[in-house]
Amino acid sequence: MKRVVTFGEIMMRLNPPGYQRFQQASSFEISFAGGEANVAVSLAQYGVDASFVTKLPGNDLAKCAVNELRRFGVDTRSIVYGGERLGVYYVEKGASQRASKVLYDRAHSSIAEASPDDFDWDSIFDGVDWFHFTGITPALGPNLPSICEQACIAAKEHGAVISCDLNYRNKLWSREDARNVMSRLAGYFDVCIANEEDASDVFGISAKDTDLSKGKLDKESYIDVARQIHERFGCPRVAITLRTSISASVNKWSGMLYEDDTAYIAPEYTMQIVDRVGGGDSFGAGLIYALLNDYEGQKAIDFAVAASCLKHSIEHDFNLVSVAEVENLAGGNASGRVQR
Amino acid sequence: MKRVVTFGEIMMRLNPPGYQRFQQASSFEISFAGGEANVAVSLAQYGVDASFVTKLPGNDLAKCAVNELRRFGVDTRSIVYGGERLGVYYVEKGASQRASKVLYDRAHSSIAEASPDDFDWDSIFDGVDWFHFTGITPALGPNLPSICEQACIAAKEHGAVISCDLNYRNKLWSREDARNVMSRLAGYFDVCIANEEDASDVFGISAKDTDLSKGKLDKESYIDVARQIHERFGCPRVAITLRTSISASVNKWSGMLYEDDTAYIAPEYTMQIVDRVGGGDSFGAGLIYALLNDYEGQKAIDFAVAASCLKHSIEHDFNLVSVAEVENLAGGNASGRVQR
Amino acid sequence: MKRVVTFGEIMMRLNPPGYQRFQQASSFEISFAGGEANVAVSLAQYGVDASFVTKLPGNDLAKCAVNELRRFGVDTRSIVYGGERLGVYYVEKGASQRASKVLYDRAHSSIAEASPDDFDWDSIFDGVDWFHFTGITPALGPNLPSICEQACIAAKEHGAVISCDLNYRNKLWSREDARNVMSRLAGYFDVCIANEEDASDVFGISAKDTDLSKGKLDKESYIDVARQIHERFGCPRVAITLRTSISASVNKWSGMLYEDDTAYIAPEYTMQIVDRVGGGDSFGAGLIYALLNDYEGQKAIDFAVAASCLKHSIEHDFNLVSVAEVENLAGGNASGRVQR
Amino acid sequence: MKRVVTFGEIMMRLNPPGYQRFQQASSFEISFAGGEANVAVSLAQYGVDASFVTKLPGNDLAKCAVNELRRFGVDTRSIVYGGERLGVYYVEKGASQRASKVLYDRAHSSIAEASPDDFDWDSIFDGVDWFHFTGITPALGPNLPSICEQACIAAKEHGAVISCDLNYRNKLWSREDARNVMSRLAGYFDVCIANEEDASDVFGISAKDTDLSKGKLDKESYIDVARQIHERFGCPRVAITLRTSISASVNKWSGMLYEDDTAYIAPEYTMQIVDRVGGGDSFGAGLIYALLNDYEGQKAIDFAVAASCLKHSIEHDFNLVSVAEVENLAGGNASGRVQR
Amino acid sequence: MKRVVTFGEIMMRLNPPGYQRFQQASSFEISFAGGEANVAVSLAQYGVDASFVTKLPGNDLAKCAVNELRRFGVDTRSIVYGGERLGVYYVEKGASQRASKVLYDRAHSSIAEASPDDFDWDSIFDGVDWFHFTGITPALGPNLPSICEQACIAAKEHGAVISCDLNYRNKLWSREDARNVMSRLAGYFDVCIANEEDASDVFGISAKDTDLSKGKLDKESYIDVARQIHERFGCPRVAITLRTSISASVNKWSGMLYEDDTAYIAPEYTMQIVDRVGGGDSFGAGLIYALLNDYEGQKAIDFAVAASCLKHSIEHDFNLVSVAEVENLAGGNASGRVQR
Amino acid sequence: MKRVVTFGEIMMRLNPPGYQRFQQASSFEISFAGGEANVAVSLAQYGVDASFVTKLPGNDLAKCAVNELRRFGVDTRSIVYGGERLGVYYVEKGASQRASKVLYDRAHSSIAEASPDDFDWDSIFDGVDWFHFTGITPALGPNLPSICEQACIAAKEHGAVISCDLNYRNKLWSREDARNVMSRLAGYFDVCIANEEDASDVFGISAKDTDLSKGKLDKESYIDVARQIHERFGCPRVAITLRTSISASVNKWSGMLYEDDTAYIAPEYTMQIVDRVGGGDSFGAGLIYALLNDYEGQKAIDFAVAASCLKHSIEHDFNLVSVAEVENLAGGNASGRVQR
Repeated sequence: MKRVVTFGEIMMRLNPPGYQRFQQASSFEISFAGGEANVAVSLAQYGVDASFVTKLPGNDLAKCAVNELRRFGVDTRSIVYGGERLGVYYVEKGASQRASKVLYDRAHSSIAEASPDDFDWDSIFDGVDWFHFTGITPALGPNLPSICEQACIAAKEHGAVISCDLNYRNKLWSREDARNVMSRLAGYFDVCIANEEDASDVFGISAKDTDLSKGKLDKESYIDVARQIHERFGCPRVAITLRTSISASVNKWSGMLYEDDTAYIAPEYTMQIVDRVGGGDSFGAGLIYALLNDYEGQKAIDFAVAASCLKHSIEHDFNLVSVAEVENLAGGNASGRVQR
Repeated sequence: MKRVVTFGEIMMRLNPPGYQRFQQASSFEISFAGGEANVAVSLAQYGVDASFVTKLPGNDLAKCAVNELRRFGVDTRSIVYGGERLGVYYVEKGASQRASKVLYDRAHSSIAEASPDDFDWDSIFDGVDWFHFTGITPALGPNLPSICEQACIAAKEHGAVISCDLNYRNKLWSREDARNVMSRLAGYFDVCIANEEDASDVFGISAKDTDLSKGKLDKESYIDVARQIHERFGCPRVAITLRTSISASVNKWSGMLYEDDTAYIAPEYTMQIVDRVGGGDSFGAGLIYALLNDYEGQKAIDFAVAASCLKHSIEHDFNLVSVAEVENLAGGNASGRVQR
Repeated sequence: MKRVVTFGEIMMRLNPPGYQRFQQASSFEISFAGGEANVAVSLAQYGVDASFVTKLPGNDLAKCAVNELRRFGVDTRSIVYGGERLGVYYVEKGASQRASKVLYDRAHSSIAEASPDDFDWDSIFDGVDWFHFTGITPALGPNLPSICEQACIAAKEHGAVISCDLNYRNKLWSREDARNVMSRLAGYFDVCIANEEDASDVFGISAKDTDLSKGKLDKESYIDVARQIHERFGCPRVAITLRTSISASVNKWSGMLYEDDTAYIAPEYTMQIVDRVGGGDSFGAGLIYALLNDYEGQKAIDFAVAASCLKHSIEHDFNLVSVAEVENLAGGNASGRVQR
Repeated sequence: MKRVVTFGEIMMRLNPPGYQRFQQASSFEISFAGGEANVAVSLAQYGVDASFVTKLPGNDLAKCAVNELRRFGVDTRSIVYGGERLGVYYVEKGASQRASKVLYDRAHSSIAEASPDDFDWDSIFDGVDWFHFTGITPALGPNLPSICEQACIAAKEHGAVISCDLNYRNKLWSREDARNVMSRLAGYFDVCIANEEDASDVFGISAKDTDLSKGKLDKESYIDVARQIHERFGCPRVAITLRTSISASVNKWSGMLYEDDTAYIAPEYTMQIVDRVGGGDSFGAGLIYALLNDYEGQKAIDFAVAASCLKHSIEHDFNLVSVAEVENLAGGNASGRVQR
Repeated sequence: MKRVVTFGEIMMRLNPPGYQRFQQASSFEISFAGGEANVAVSLAQYGVDASFVTKLPGNDLAKCAVNELRRFGVDTRSIVYGGERLGVYYVEKGASQRASKVLYDRAHSSIAEASPDDFDWDSIFDGVDWFHFTGITPALGPNLPSICEQACIAAKEHGAVISCDLNYRNKLWSREDARNVMSRLAGYFDVCIANEEDASDVFGISAKDTDLSKGKLDKESYIDVARQIHERFGCPRVAITLRTSISASVNKWSGMLYEDDTAYIAPEYTMQIVDRVGGGDSFGAGLIYALLNDYEGQKAIDFAVAASCLKHSIEHDFNLVSVAEVENLAGGNASGRVQR
Repeated sequence: MKRVVTFGEIMMRLNPPGYQRFQQASSFEISFAGGEANVAVSLAQYGVDASFVTKLPGNDLAKCAVNELRRFGVDTRSIVYGGERLGVYYVEKGASQRASKVLYDRAHSSIAEASPDDFDWDSIFDGVDWFHFTGITPALGPNLPSICEQACIAAKEHGAVISCDLNYRNKLWSREDARNVMSRLAGYFDVCIANEEDASDVFGISAKDTDLSKGKLDKESYIDVARQIHERFGCPRVAITLRTSISASVNKWSGMLYEDDTAYIAPEYTMQIVDRVGGGDSFGAGLIYALLNDYEGQKAIDFAVAASCLKHSIEHDFNLVSVAEVENLAGGNASGRVQR
């Protein structure tokens, strides 16, 4: 069984039931999520031996987060304990022309205030095939850029493939800080995942003729973005997600994988959205699974896009689908007929 | 008031709230359902004197099932008690490209283990105008084919019209077993209801150029299927439902009634699906109501399709709509404007 | 801060969760609503000093209604207490081809049985810029037409602009009674709000070539309706909402403002409906806000239509959106992309 | 099977979940209840053929009420349709020192505005063994005293035993009106059910040395009250419930049956209360069942008190317990040990 | 109308439904609470003009907190906006021998990081009769002791009575820090509220022969504690709550008011607990109401204890009871009989 | 870390919310439970390396059960897959004089139809310190007695201590069958756990003067029962739970441990019951933990009784408490005071 380590923050996610606004809510649904935790959970559903690394406080809420990871088969034995709080975020689900809102209350979390000697990377990466993190992790706190770099160095030493989803968050750091840190880390990447905004926000690399606020995008221009990332950082593979937002309820979704100067583009799905949060992470997990299993380019991107398409039909962040379900959709069966 | 008897299994249906997957659920919604029970409930909403016949264990859960039937006006006095368990099934509601899943836990139910002398058909059919069952009932257990045949014989003797919805379930029996049993029973049918898969699975009768996994179908080919059923078994009327699955959230829906070598095809509706389970049963109930009331061909199929279109907007299996609501839609008012 | 007074009934709204029919419900969600209360709440979200006037009984349920208004920032100090009951209404949410149903149980409410000396209009309108009510208020009970007229007279004396949404309810009064009363009151209107049915039901003014049951309408013909209202009653501004009901789940939505013999028509939105009730009221509140702030014609109708478009994505009647959210949509950002 | 008719009002009951106050609630639980409907439902659980007579409006909410009665096995075929509304009442469940609150919104209901010719008593009482109503029914509206008297006359003619639970409600009528009406009706009673307050409020008959606000009562004094009722109206049997309110959460409960100048007193139960509403009605149903089946005095009162003791452990008004469950408790097994 | 200002933190409270442990929860109920906010809400229910002062961030969750205060009639116009977060706390409700657990996540809240110039005390106390805060407020952050002292000075200048509930929280500060700060502030107190642990933790003043872990206490010894507080700080009135914890489900509850060297002790209530959190705050609010209205000693402590007794029967922190309800209980009616 | 293996059935448990009867429920809460699974989960909370062995079908519901075990830290790697169904049971929670009801639908489950070669006991017991099962497991199906015996033999060979909770279930087998099978297995027991009914039902060993239906029991007589079990089977330790059922809401609870002809009896707790199911299993888990850690007799029984006392305050079967929480109660702190 292939072994994957992901590293980042897991938070408690709270959301009003259904389509209630925050102002209307009298209860919240609880789940637990975070970019790298979402990837680990999705990989565990695919049968991968996925381990999630973070730092958590020693209280009951953190215990709930760990329990939830264990429930879905993630190895939580490398989690480090200490610090003061579990990050929390709040989701108000949008519909039609009303956008979803995400509020973060993650400052001062245990992972954000972690120090380099909290993690014994040499032991964590023993026997590991793949290491994944996102651009959120180095943005969490002052020590995180160097912690991430130490993780990358150790991963390389143990022969693990390294993937990173750029995932720029302007609430966490400035574009300048992001560019400095991520440009240094990008030298370690074997697979770089992005959407067009990320490439522009983090590296100043942009596609032409794209106006995201109109929800439109030009697929061809992404090939150019991918090539630039590849050329600047020497990263062999670049994957880009392609989302067209018709409304908060209906999105079109596809993706592209660039390798060896070739771009593989998946079919586009029109999705009735149940929960859009975690969509990007489920793409990352799908891609990692495909590449871990040596899928060739077209099959790999088809798997990653079908996997993340299914995520949009599932409540909360975790993409609780099996390989068989993804293969069924990637194979062309999108009819949604009842399975008895 | 017209009297209808339906015969089959009623089960407890359990489903996670909303669009949760089984793996996420921390509670289930409870309802009660089964092909023939659904038909009886729908007919009772139309003002028909509908009686449901089955065998149930003498426990509290079975009592809940009976109470629910009574609540919606079904006559439960012919239900027989004994045996060990109430069947249960689980529904995970799909959305967008993710299909709904139905899990059955119905083995060893009281009705599946019923014996021929449990039912006093002569008394049950006294004064009855119509008898309906589905291809699920004879598949439930070893004694059920002969019990069904006895019921058909008694129904004929009392002058009741007999309808059957083929409803092939491959979890219950093989195609071979189905063909042997259903071919014998089909000789009693006045009205045969099917979808194209049923006709093929049960009788080996197929329509050309239809690939269901793509969600497409060719209406013309169904006329040929209906004619073959009519010719092979002498059944005067054959009705076929026509579903195009665009996704688990959006379906197109129509139907055809074949009689006297003429095919009547209803208008097609594009449906935003609330709950798809029980859609076929609501078609059967609509058709029975229409034919019991001597609607001519086009009006009958229009009523049946409008009735089942409305079902797709209703939670759980029972089609809780009135004749007036169906007539309103069949009459062309599909705008869904608020009724104050 | 601009001050607005609205006058009418607030009721308790009870609805089954999700898409359950009344017959299936085992609990109701509680909210509080009414045409003029909805307008006051929406204006309070826009930062307007909105006061709601009504008569309520002195019991706990009425106290809940007042608490809910205060919760959303409405001034409730002019509410009068006495009488016997709080009106109640029930909403069954429709979907697809199944229409939503609204049942009213509002007879004998405190406001319906109010008497003219319950309200001290001179003090209520002290310092007020705008007075709004709907055609529902004078229909509530025998004293209400004269109470409304007294309110209009006092409002005029205090220099307030007067707006009225015709809102014809055939359960409350006949077309004849409506025409008699509303024609007399219309002489006070500075802004008249209607949909085509209202204009026809109340004033016998109709647009050509429109068949609402088909869900289609011809925008041009509304200009003619608006012009007729203006000419007959001397009302300087007439606004008309333009709804195309594709189904209970999908509507198209726009609106027109007529002033100085010019018609301004907003862009049309295709909406995935969360809750359609209160859609018209949110249009009225958006228009009042725009005109209170001297928006010119096109900008005013764009604001009103965008505001009410957003309402359709929000549970219950109150339009809990901010000016910034409306401006964002009116400015063309309808993509519904997640806001982090 | 013995046949019982009860006559009165059924209302929709709405209550906040758990121990929420009205002011906190964001949803209500729905059930249906009313003194005589509660008795009919309880009798149906005991296997009695119970029919409930009332007048209901022809709307969906009334349909829900009828469905709920049918669900629990009550014969609803004698219900008359017409009028405008279904009565509603609201329950706020108390706990510890905080009392439960009940708010009625029952004015103008269909039954309150019924007229004498709505009910065909001769046909209703055909083959009936027992007729039960409460002192609430004649208090509902101006025609109800004479309707009740007509019912009593017809019941007597058909040989039915007549029982009445005095159930004085000061929100419905004054003590004077109650005394006038109930004194006339009492001449028809074979069984009179009361608590001490009722006897005093309705007939001015009181027990000595009892201060209910302190929650204490003296059992001996009730024998005197029962004897006075018997002597004044010639009523052969008088039953009195004996409640000691320690708090809203804990009550002591017993009862007395007086016949042939002998008083039978049941053992007293200390109850942890789940839902106290409907407690008196469940006593009435238990007593009717016992007397219908010719239980002698001690066994009858033991059954009635055990039945109503169990009711206090059940949510909502209906006493959903079987004869076996009551006999088990009446037989001395109050340990509440798990039944597997 | 008397005017009261309270000053402190309001937090979002999240708790699993019913008696679920944190580890079991899949949703949380939302409410808002904090010692001084609870007092303000309770006073508003008594008809007092209560204003709550705090500092909150400018986000949606803070808006929900403000809305909730407004909903229950509290004046929120003196709330200051800025800073980064709203404090949150989590409650796991205990039962029987399992204690309730409260987890705080309040560090770095806007109020904790407030600075002295955030509050314009001179304007806040204009026309105010009473100022209340608790020992939690000065413990929240480094600037809070001096902010509290400035508030006390301003309150004194405007002639307001000052009350403080010691409320020692060892998670917020050490006993030493508490003693230094609270000893300085105590010089301003007109009314000091405490339980025995507070007096000992904060001032080192203890009662003899009391072992709280056994849930027993000796009322007489509290008189000595109160006298010591009075003598050391010159505080004219000292009130002490007297709780005997039999289990998490059952508590005994009373209180004492010491003034002019006399101790008034209220009757003791045995309470079945619905929600114990906020019990102390409801005592403070009851006492403030009584003293604002010049109740003499015995009546004042009776009112305060009855008020807080009722709180234990109410979900969440706010004591949503009226003066009439408290007077009813204080007057001796503890029977919890249904109010119709 | 000590390693424990438990072997038996895990079922899905479904129960109506709160105190609803089955007949009232419109949803069920989901949890997973079974005697030996409950013990494994409780031990995992105490930090023991607990492994649960069973046979489960390969469907989604079984996956949910496994996920839930993993969530709470149980090792599920020895679970065997195959067969047809997951057992289900239904709990209706009682209150006051109304008993809880448990309905089993466990026939034909995968474990009930398991065969001896499904389990590789030699590998399962490698490195294991303790083996626990209950008298339910051998009663599940025809092969289970011999499977249990094979497990006992292998456990002995690997040096594991063997404990068994007699747990007689008359729905599963007759007293005769139980006696035959259990007498043979008892020869392997190091620790035998029972309540008085079990000892009598299974072995015909009874205590004098005990009438369980009255809820009373005489502690002394249990010493005699334990001694008889010890003498007949040579089992070194016998533990007996001592429950006095005052009502379904209030129980008294204690226990006795007999070893070396000495009986250690724990203090008795009076419990307000939240959920009584799983109470016995939590006693077994507490006792195993205590003995695994070499607690001497009195301390061991005190721990086991305190642990199971806490279980009665927790929803569903699993005893989600920590060692520290149990020690706190066993140490005498039963006051239930809030922990902040």
